[in-house]
Amino acid sequence: MDIKAYLSSKKSLVDKTLDTLVPSAKMFPTSVHEAMRYSLFAGGKRVRPILAIAAAEALGAKTSGLLPLAGSLELIHTYSLIHDDLPAMDDDDFRRGRPTCHKEYGEAVAILAGDGLLNMAFEVLSDPRRIEAVSGKRLIAIIREIGTASGVLGMVGGQVADMESEGKDVDLPTLEYIHTHKTGALIRASVRVGALYAKAGKRQFAALTRYGELVGLAFQIADDILDLTGNQKELGKDVGSDLKKGKKTFPSFYGLAESRKRAVEVADKAVASLQGFGRAADPLRELAKYIVNRVN
Amino acid sequence: MDIKAYLSSKKSLVDKTLDTLVPSAKMFPTSVHEAMRYSLFAGGKRVRPILAIAAAEALGAKTSGLLPLAGSLELIHTYSLIHDDLPAMDDDDFRRGRPTCHKEYGEAVAILAGDGLLNMAFEVLSDPRRIEAVSGKRLIAIIREIGTASGVLGMVGGQVADMESEGKDVDLPTLEYIHTHKTGALIRASVRVGALYAKAGKRQFAALTRYGELVGLAFQIADDILDLTGNQKELGKDVGSDLKKGKKTFPSFYGLAESRKRAVEVADKAVASLQGFGRAADPLRELAKYIVNRVN
Repeated sequence: MDIKAYLSSKKSLVDKTLDTLVPSAKMFPTSVHEAMRYSLFAGGKRVRPILAIAAAEALGAKTSGLLPLAGSLELIHTYSLIHDDLPAMDDDDFRRGRPTCHKEYGEAVAILAGDGLLNMAFEVLSDPRRIEAVSGKRLIAIIREIGTASGVLGMVGGQVADMESEGKDVDLPTLEYIHTHKTGALIRASVRVGALYAKAGKRQFAALTRYGELVGLAFQIADDILDLTGNQKELGKDVGSDLKKGKKTFPSFYGLAESRKRAVEVADKAVASLQGFGRAADPLRELAKYIVNRVN
Repeated sequence: MDIKAYLSSKKSLVDKTLDTLVPSAKMFPTSVHEAMRYSLFAGGKRVRPILAIAAAEALGAKTSGLLPLAGSLELIHTYSLIHDDLPAMDDDDFRRGRPTCHKEYGEAVAILAGDGLLNMAFEVLSDPRRIEAVSGKRLIAIIREIGTASGVLGMVGGQVADMESEGKDVDLPTLEYIHTHKTGALIRASVRVGALYAKAGKRQFAALTRYGELVGLAFQIADDILDLTGNQKELGKDVGSDLKKGKKTFPSFYGLAESRKRAVEVADKAVASLQGFGRAADPLRELAKYIVNRVN
């Protein structure tokens, strides 16, 4: 299959959905609505929503009803980028080749745009006009899946640990905690949201969970490698920022060559976890490979 | 009825609930868990959860199952205080007589503790182990009620408008927008969450909504008056901070005497909106009066 064509067609579906989920930039007070849209439409790859869609497709489900649920994953991802970039946090000036949200709109509006996007995810998830295809217990389970991944036991905890580790001698369990929480939690949740939507059976759900964990890990190793070796223009952000900030990464533990080897191994394991699935899971298989081979 | 005894007994129920909702301060990474608890247990009056409880009681409902839902309102209120106090926002050093969250834990942890609390509200609301008494459509409606009040169409929008109005010549509609969104939205939602929980009929729901809007307005007028005339020790924060920041308030529009008169009138209207309710609504009636007569 042509994974690039697949990614591009799904990305366009997700982008259209996101456009309808977030209020117009003309709404009062305009600054925060503009800022939310500025960061949301900065050219993200939509990896998380696409993982949710591909997981549901792997189980043979039609995915039009999944789109707003998948979109809410991107709202949460975007909020986390805005807050992570703040001066008090990673203090990054560029993201995806453009000034970061606080550079463009000021810190206060950026903090509130992040708050607004995080909150908007749950507004969408609880809006019966948007979420028609799922209801009751299954919808509550999906909200819980996303909430747990996003909160202090997931991404928030990972970001705190990441910041507090800067410039310190971090051990491997702490690095693993950071990775499984800061990036891994929402990627795993994305796959599981697709699985819940498609009414996965117990064994299917376990296999897709395993896939999500491995893909999250592969994504993070690839991210660490890109931060060292990537092309600044393709990445749209500074290269070498982890090194500058004294952040421990996979390459700083294992070296670059070994990290590359591991990324491929982990992606292979992710593919292997889908053994029981048919051709409908091909997009998931290709996504695992794409995630380690990407250039941004 | 003895409203002080009522408030104190409900506050203690809410505090016990909150203690179980938020993870232990010993959890890794401890800083953010400590910071969440530091702000959550800084001596808040628990007005919002108590309004939810009193609204459900007014309809004759048993409220033990409502406690975690009511607690989630306080999680959101606390998150908003932490973020509002940040240097990039209102830049406040004291809250409830103690250093604000970022003064105690640093800005990064404070931002993330706020994020964690906001997110935790939705984690709680979607946790079937905690939310036993409500499910399905009604629970989704409650989540939506809270999400809408908390987000960019509610509190977040109000805070943006408030900040952007500092030092400017604000007109009355803008002041009203700020008040109905920044403070009013969550107070109204609190009453409505109690009503939804207690399966209010259409007319009851409309009456309680009206009550919630009026009490929210009374609360805000009283807050503006307290900022001018309050006792710094009782308030636990600086007096006159609105003036210093060039914020428009009710007293700056109407003068102090007229504002006091309006606060009482609005509280009276709130009481009047409960005409169809029996003695079970007495706590709501007393709460409306308490809210304009409070000293902090």
